[in-house]
Amino acid sequence: MIRVAIIGATGIVGQQFLVGLDGHPWFKVTKLAASQRSAGKKYIDALRDDAGSLKWWCPEPIPAGVAEMVVEDAEEFDPTQVDLIFSAVDTAIAKKLEPVYAKTTPVVSTASAFRYEADTPILIGGVNMDHAQLIRVQQANRGWKGFVVPKSNCTISGLTVSLKPILDTFGVRRVVMTSLQAMSGAGRTPGLSAMDMMENVIPYIPGEEPKVEMEPQKILGILKNGAIEPAPFPISATCTRVPVLDGHLVCATVETEREATPEAVKKAMVEFGKDFAALGLPSSPQHLIEVTDDPFRPQPRMDRERGGGMTTTVGRIRPDTVLGPNGIRYVCLAHNTKLGAAKGAIQTGEYLAKYFLNWQV
Amino acid sequence: MIRVAIIGATGIVGQQFLVGLDGHPWFKVTKLAASQRSAGKKYIDALRDDAGSLKWWCPEPIPAGVAEMVVEDAEEFDPTQVDLIFSAVDTAIAKKLEPVYAKTTPVVSTASAFRYEADTPILIGGVNMDHAQLIRVQQANRGWKGFVVPKSNCTISGLTVSLKPILDTFGVRRVVMTSLQAMSGAGRTPGLSAMDMMENVIPYIPGEEPKVEMEPQKILGILKNGAIEPAPFPISATCTRVPVLDGHLVCATVETEREATPEAVKKAMVEFGKDFAALGLPSSPQHLIEVTDDPFRPQPRMDRERGGGMTTTVGRIRPDTVLGPNGIRYVCLAHNTKLGAAKGAIQTGEYLAKYFLNWQV
Amino acid sequence: MIRVAIIGATGIVGQQFLVGLDGHPWFKVTKLAASQRSAGKKYIDALRDDAGSLKWWCPEPIPAGVAEMVVEDAEEFDPTQVDLIFSAVDTAIAKKLEPVYAKTTPVVSTASAFRYEADTPILIGGVNMDHAQLIRVQQANRGWKGFVVPKSNCTISGLTVSLKPILDTFGVRRVVMTSLQAMSGAGRTPGLSAMDMMENVIPYIPGEEPKVEMEPQKILGILKNGAIEPAPFPISATCTRVPVLDGHLVCATVETEREATPEAVKKAMVEFGKDFAALGLPSSPQHLIEVTDDPFRPQPRMDRERGGGMTTTVGRIRPDTVLGPNGIRYVCLAHNTKLGAAKGAIQTGEYLAKYFLNWQV
Amino acid sequence: MIRVAIIGATGIVGQQFLVGLDGHPWFKVTKLAASQRSAGKKYIDALRDDAGSLKWWCPEPIPAGVAEMVVEDAEEFDPTQVDLIFSAVDTAIAKKLEPVYAKTTPVVSTASAFRYEADTPILIGGVNMDHAQLIRVQQANRGWKGFVVPKSNCTISGLTVSLKPILDTFGVRRVVMTSLQAMSGAGRTPGLSAMDMMENVIPYIPGEEPKVEMEPQKILGILKNGAIEPAPFPISATCTRVPVLDGHLVCATVETEREATPEAVKKAMVEFGKDFAALGLPSSPQHLIEVTDDPFRPQPRMDRERGGGMTTTVGRIRPDTVLGPNGIRYVCLAHNTKLGAAKGAIQTGEYLAKYFLNWQV
Repeated sequence: MIRVAIIGATGIVGQQFLVGLDGHPWFKVTKLAASQRSAGKKYIDALRDDAGSLKWWCPEPIPAGVAEMVVEDAEEFDPTQVDLIFSAVDTAIAKKLEPVYAKTTPVVSTASAFRYEADTPILIGGVNMDHAQLIRVQQANRGWKGFVVPKSNCTISGLTVSLKPILDTFGVRRVVMTSLQAMSGAGRTPGLSAMDMMENVIPYIPGEEPKVEMEPQKILGILKNGAIEPAPFPISATCTRVPVLDGHLVCATVETEREATPEAVKKAMVEFGKDFAALGLPSSPQHLIEVTDDPFRPQPRMDRERGGGMTTTVGRIRPDTVLGPNGIRYVCLAHNTKLGAAKGAIQTGEYLAKYFLNWQV
Repeated sequence: MIRVAIIGATGIVGQQFLVGLDGHPWFKVTKLAASQRSAGKKYIDALRDDAGSLKWWCPEPIPAGVAEMVVEDAEEFDPTQVDLIFSAVDTAIAKKLEPVYAKTTPVVSTASAFRYEADTPILIGGVNMDHAQLIRVQQANRGWKGFVVPKSNCTISGLTVSLKPILDTFGVRRVVMTSLQAMSGAGRTPGLSAMDMMENVIPYIPGEEPKVEMEPQKILGILKNGAIEPAPFPISATCTRVPVLDGHLVCATVETEREATPEAVKKAMVEFGKDFAALGLPSSPQHLIEVTDDPFRPQPRMDRERGGGMTTTVGRIRPDTVLGPNGIRYVCLAHNTKLGAAKGAIQTGEYLAKYFLNWQV
Repeated sequence: MIRVAIIGATGIVGQQFLVGLDGHPWFKVTKLAASQRSAGKKYIDALRDDAGSLKWWCPEPIPAGVAEMVVEDAEEFDPTQVDLIFSAVDTAIAKKLEPVYAKTTPVVSTASAFRYEADTPILIGGVNMDHAQLIRVQQANRGWKGFVVPKSNCTISGLTVSLKPILDTFGVRRVVMTSLQAMSGAGRTPGLSAMDMMENVIPYIPGEEPKVEMEPQKILGILKNGAIEPAPFPISATCTRVPVLDGHLVCATVETEREATPEAVKKAMVEFGKDFAALGLPSSPQHLIEVTDDPFRPQPRMDRERGGGMTTTVGRIRPDTVLGPNGIRYVCLAHNTKLGAAKGAIQTGEYLAKYFLNWQV
Repeated sequence: MIRVAIIGATGIVGQQFLVGLDGHPWFKVTKLAASQRSAGKKYIDALRDDAGSLKWWCPEPIPAGVAEMVVEDAEEFDPTQVDLIFSAVDTAIAKKLEPVYAKTTPVVSTASAFRYEADTPILIGGVNMDHAQLIRVQQANRGWKGFVVPKSNCTISGLTVSLKPILDTFGVRRVVMTSLQAMSGAGRTPGLSAMDMMENVIPYIPGEEPKVEMEPQKILGILKNGAIEPAPFPISATCTRVPVLDGHLVCATVETEREATPEAVKKAMVEFGKDFAALGLPSSPQHLIEVTDDPFRPQPRMDRERGGGMTTTVGRIRPDTVLGPNGIRYVCLAHNTKLGAAKGAIQTGEYLAKYFLNWQV
């Protein structure tokens, strides 16, 4: 078994890592770390607040054995105790700690600290596995034996997965999108106010749109001569928050280079990612994209758990002629805390373990 | 006082007409009509269901005097008993009954039955009052002494109001929009299912997008030689339903003919409609558009009641360069059952009473 | 494998039966029946509405193989084709059809049609298995080879499970309870209105309180000389509807015969049902009751899935001295469509198959 | 005009005071005070957070003139600048500051700091105006020229108003109640988490039940010889939080001394408080209690605004025979931030100004 540590284990993303790794066939959580406040406590005690309430937020129970593990101080954590680190800390802390860990140990992170570094790939399962080779550049540049590979922003994961077959088959000229994002994306401490979200929409998510307008092009770009050349299309994004627990819905309008009928787009999406799915990574779904013909779908509450929360659901595929002569519109949904965060990071870890690090699994 | 009848008085829109006309300085509700099922009953008895529950859905109480009024059969209603008719019936019934009423009596309707007739204007307060003259053509064509003037679709009311100053000042080349629509737009009998809407988004509203992609151009068009020449820009629309009671939010991306800085757009919007507001119609707000600088606004629950539900709130004005060289993005909100339905129709009735029918008010 | 039919297979409870029986080790669904409207159609076509939307409401997908099964007309269904029938039809239809089926075939039903018949037990797993012997009386009275055994009302399932150890250990003098019930209890066609339930509570559920005030005593009663003598304590119930999808919460205040400290009550609850759980029925949970020490729990969304939706969660156990000298207060939660409906009925079917019908499983 | 100050003016209760006092015929807000963080800023600037969002939470706009008022430091506030103080600060701060203000100036407070002091009345409009005389004792005991009169806990306001006519007419032996409380009762900074409240119920509110089980008896007690003798009946309370914005619903079961038919209880409630309403205080409703015959009411969203949020709505009046030989059950609703907080405090201030302080108004 590969020994893994979860850094930021007491937060919501850390909890999702624990759930996603429960019973994992390759990875065994042997270390937990968090802030100094939690350090030295049993995990279950670190979760309990002053009123005696357990701040465990996942619907799944705490995995067996985890409750009694003692949490270490992330600042003092010795990365050589484990083979692989999953980091779920905030960006500011990630910036400080991840490079320290990466000197010796591979780090897969949900923080954005390294996303925009030229020598760092953002990997999404089935979309850009070839970018993994950029890690060599990162290691060489920084003198690291390990590395840092960040997860993409949660909002763009479904969009990027669905754009990939369109880009490959029809070319993409530009994208206009509106997201209707779930509340879990805003975290839990304290996260969004119930009084703000009740029977309401908040049409702004600080810092979100610039990421959404930039990350997909990097992920969909071409690795050439040790650098990624971003895909050259622009994205115009409006990001809103809706009263939904999990599942980010994106309404996308895409101008394509070539004619893209709904039937052809559907076909390209359905066939997309078969090679990657065939790798049989433990956290991979059978289908990277499922296309629904029900005009009322995808819906966050009904479709987010498809493929264990790792499948992107696409619906309402229909032509667009407003952006340009060729174009397509659709709605896509991805689980923001599974595909878009912890479980997606685990899948990245699985891929890198087997195909980049060439560990026996 | 001008005597008015409400047709479809027991439904949710009919109720909103009653609330909107309560204490009205010009209009007095003297007749109520509805389906045969309600005919002959006191209004309050017509509202009561078999379980003894009162199907009055407005937060405001039933206006004094209305409860005891006897409901007439809409099919047998004599339109000459009143000066003006507000029609809140379904489209199929509107198609049948409104022409009968219009032979003798002016009808302002929330149904879509006549919206796409070439000789029929769709009026929105402050946007296209000059289109009222098209009524003459309708009357001549059809041999009516009265007329039928329909309200616009509720979703486009805020969009169209906000596009008007952009069109006038900067020109509009095309629009891409996503709506996040409130549940009240789906009516009440039975309306949307609580199990479907809880913690969810439904990304499709049957029949909505074609209306949204066509009506604004007619409303923003030019009346020339007895016909409306639609504004020539295309709209690409995705309409979704969110768990909100009232207030349709629209995320709009607009390519303009000429440079449109956020400051200039804000200025054009703030100054828009002063002449119309100065007419002092009883249902008109002080400001047709309010522009908010709070990046988290407009929000449906917090902003829908501005100007008595008749003001469109615009926020998040920012440039767009993806649709074309000049462009602007913003979020707008309008109250779908006030500006977008009953109260908007009352305002239209007020305008027509004073400035088209030239009644003394 | 035991061949089972689901009657009322297209409704929400029928769907939950299908999910609950998916991959069942003993039972195989070989027949589906529903109303005439669905008869002759493939199951998946029977679910599709005119707008092309699939009326499948469970978060789990349609079990493999079911989509293509042809639905039969429940009125013409031949019960001898199967070994066991699960009935999910409305009460009026149940009254008519279940006796016909029961002539030859055992029926376990979620309808209330037979609940209050003197010769019919209402079985809840682990609470009153000895009542199964009353079926002999039913068969003798009615000349049936099969039988009809109804599920209890969904609201009382958690209350009755939690009262059983209190009754056995401390005696019960009376109960005052308020329920906060989930919306799924009101069904789906059309079920509750989204406009009514949004940001609201409805303090009345037609027909619910009389059932809640009567059924627990029958279930907790003593079978003597071929009849059930109800437990002699009265219940005062107020039933309300809250905006929750699944999971009925009950706030109970119980006067006991003897002193019942919170510690003693907790102990009695934790130890309750070990014998029944030890039978290892496929749908039984490991613990019939889980007691939480977190003062903020049980919560419907967080606790309803414990034990696969078959465990009752109890919290906030504290003394009461207002009802009488001895008393206890607590909050309990049970999954209304699992323990309280389809899955509870499946568990009853499992028990009867193995221990009453003595089938080899 | 009477000059009033609002202490804690930037918080949600302070904002509700501002709304409740907007256009008040007797009271003019001349001073605002809050924590040191806000001191010296214009009110509107004190409300703005770092992201530029205005933390004004009322649906009504900020009253004219208030935005530009400069906020003072509550700790340094000179109470002699005003005639009357409304205090909306937290209990710990109230304990410290209110006695300082009360040396010279009357204080009406929504904090609980003084509620359980023997020389301090808790006044609810129409229920116990005679308790105002206890203020003399407070002044004498403490050497104050002013006084501190606290508002009751928000949860009990509707319960206590509805119990008063029952107590007077039928006598009360004991009460068992469950509350379904709105989220606004938990405040706004940060208040409840949206992720916790979505599609959920939280069956515990820290510190609430002891208040609910004690305050009504004080309010309904008898002032004799300078002390209040509490009403002698016990209350058993379970307090829960439901996803509702405003309006606390209470399900009450009451054992009465004498026979209390639903008709007689309704009559007593409908006739209750006519004398008090006849005083014509600006914030008083026409009816202290409205009784609805609709079995599905009261509902928080539909009934909380009755009487400007100052009327208690009672429904579902029905007999109870479980608590004792005579008894009644009902559901009551009161607006927790109007009757139960700021507006109720304003009404108390109005009463005391006119009838205790004998000011000319």
